Amino acid sequence: MKPNRAHNFSAGPAALPYEVLQKAHKELLDYRGAGASIIEMSHRGPEYTEIDLSARKRLKALLGMDDDFEILFLQGGASLQFMMVPYNFMFQKTADYINTGVWSKKAIKEAHLFGDVHVAFSSEDTGFDRVPEDQQIKLSGKGEYAYFTSNNTIYGTQYAKEPNCGELPLVCDASSDFLSKPLDIKKYGVLFAGAQKNAGPAGLTVVILRKDFLEKARKENVSSMLSYPVQTGTLFNTPPVFGVYIFNYVLEWIEEKGGLSAMDIYNQEKAAILYDEIDKDDFYRGNAHKDSRSLMNVTFRLPSEELEKKFILESGQSGLSGLKGHRSAGGIRASIYNACPKESVEALVSFMQAFRAKNG
Amino acid sequence: MKPNRAHNFSAGPAALPYEVLQKAHKELLDYRGAGASIIEMSHRGPEYTEIDLSARKRLKALLGMDDDFEILFLQGGASLQFMMVPYNFMFQKTADYINTGVWSKKAIKEAHLFGDVHVAFSSEDTGFDRVPEDQQIKLSGKGEYAYFTSNNTIYGTQYAKEPNCGELPLVCDASSDFLSKPLDIKKYGVLFAGAQKNAGPAGLTVVILRKDFLEKARKENVSSMLSYPVQTGTLFNTPPVFGVYIFNYVLEWIEEKGGLSAMDIYNQEKAAILYDEIDKDDFYRGNAHKDSRSLMNVTFRLPSEELEKKFILESGQSGLSGLKGHRSAGGIRASIYNACPKESVEALVSFMQAFRAKNG
Repeated sequence: MKPNRAHNFSAGPAALPYEVLQKAHKELLDYRGAGASIIEMSHRGPEYTEIDLSARKRLKALLGMDDDFEILFLQGGASLQFMMVPYNFMFQKTADYINTGVWSKKAIKEAHLFGDVHVAFSSEDTGFDRVPEDQQIKLSGKGEYAYFTSNNTIYGTQYAKEPNCGELPLVCDASSDFLSKPLDIKKYGVLFAGAQKNAGPAGLTVVILRKDFLEKARKENVSSMLSYPVQTGTLFNTPPVFGVYIFNYVLEWIEEKGGLSAMDIYNQEKAAILYDEIDKDDFYRGNAHKDSRSLMNVTFRLPSEELEKKFILESGQSGLSGLKGHRSAGGIRASIYNACPKESVEALVSFMQAFRAKNG
Repeated sequence: MKPNRAHNFSAGPAALPYEVLQKAHKELLDYRGAGASIIEMSHRGPEYTEIDLSARKRLKALLGMDDDFEILFLQGGASLQFMMVPYNFMFQKTADYINTGVWSKKAIKEAHLFGDVHVAFSSEDTGFDRVPEDQQIKLSGKGEYAYFTSNNTIYGTQYAKEPNCGELPLVCDASSDFLSKPLDIKKYGVLFAGAQKNAGPAGLTVVILRKDFLEKARKENVSSMLSYPVQTGTLFNTPPVFGVYIFNYVLEWIEEKGGLSAMDIYNQEKAAILYDEIDKDDFYRGNAHKDSRSLMNVTFRLPSEELEKKFILESGQSGLSGLKGHRSAGGIRASIYNACPKESVEALVSFMQAFRAKNG
């Protein structure tokens, strides 16, 4: 570990690569000799323009995108996308939604404002402990797109690969596993991610749009800030400069680590260490159905809520932070995104072993 | 000046107080011993909660707000507020708009999506060179609010005090003179400001709502992210953490400087130095009508576009950055927000004198 660096398991805003923070630290008072911080410079000036172009180029290369895609750096988090997607693509029509938790439900709620929502699968009855197998997805047959949440932070579930929805364009909230592994980008009509888990600080939302799908976006009587076509092209308004700046360095860090396949291997390795410990006996119990387990958010319970409270308290005292489960799910949640180092996972496992020995 | 600090006249994102940058720099790798950066921490944790509460408390004290007001820290810039204001307050009704430039026009365009816009004044015919005198404002008599842009960055115009619209709640885009002087907050139903001029980095929008006006906001069939009532209260989604963090330090810096009255005196003094130089003879010509001159953005022309290009080039070479006028207005624009020190204005005036001597 780096000097005074906590083992940070926060679900988001979450740990960033220390190397990225160091670069930002070095430049914060004076961006490359310009005599000003990057956050004090015009978003239409050469310095920020270079950052913006660099981030786009890197993201395209990492995801294997060709010129068939547009990239937007927006604000408002995934929550604003919940509204923008149906506003642009569903207006007075139908769309298919896969319901795997709180975030999907919020997206469905927004979609109801604009058209006819068809819920193609829901795991609500089993406490959102799983994502669907392909044959469980019942599409309406008349949807404009199929919406899913690729990783569910609260319950610790994740799709191992994209749900099979045939030729229907996928719309994906990838906030919590964005850039953690390769994906088949051609299947996506829209992919969006709030940056504050795997990609950067809170306040930046990365939106990827497939151009042939974008052409179908509503164009009449639309609000400029909510319109994907308006937002495409020259900067419509001031972007979240600091967020894009950090994001560009995160992308560089992923490149240096070997790209998304290397990230995937590293993330699988980290998650395996943790799930192996959970599966050793019945003291720790994983929340998610085994086939749906997330590599990003590992959620588990202890034999009692009292022991969970003790676990959270004592882990915090041992320099392991952010392990308390989401208030709606309880228990323990270890968020181990890209930037969470293996050493932190090993430190957590050591703590878990000692805790079991004392309290088991 | 501080070591390697440019004279930064950028219109936004703009210069921040160097003391604020230094505080952020000191804490960026390790926030107060927590072993993580503030941008790596949960927005519901104790560290960010303290920052959020501190910023609210300071803003209330500086503006003399009592508990009759709500403060929101949103994203999307003033541009999203152009839509949110009529979405919440004008739906299928009428509102009065004062048109003093590009930003007002964008707000009017959004308002047309929701109801009946009455333009109560426009200075478009004279190239947006002025804001209205009170007797020039012709209200509809049935408006839900009266909308104005308190400072017009592009043309360099500003209201010396709030337009008189009787008892009608004012809705104000204060992006470019927010916190530059005291204001009569009780007159405002909504006041919003993108942070990136006087208040912080791009990506934070501060929105102030008077509670009795907020009660009138539309409540049926509204999108959560666009609804002021939904956004009021507990954090609806992840806020722009870094923006609020910097904003809190900017507020502290304003307090230390003596508050908004002291800011006003300092800003008047800086602007006077510059306007005095412009008014010396006909070489420099101010854009704005004298009664409407902005203390924030000083815009002027030279005898020819060729000389303007030369001025921008040579000023840049002399360490004066960001002086190029907005692309829609041309000429020179010196943005001298709160954080622009008097020394920078004096350096600009010295350059102007030397430039006139050589080229006049």
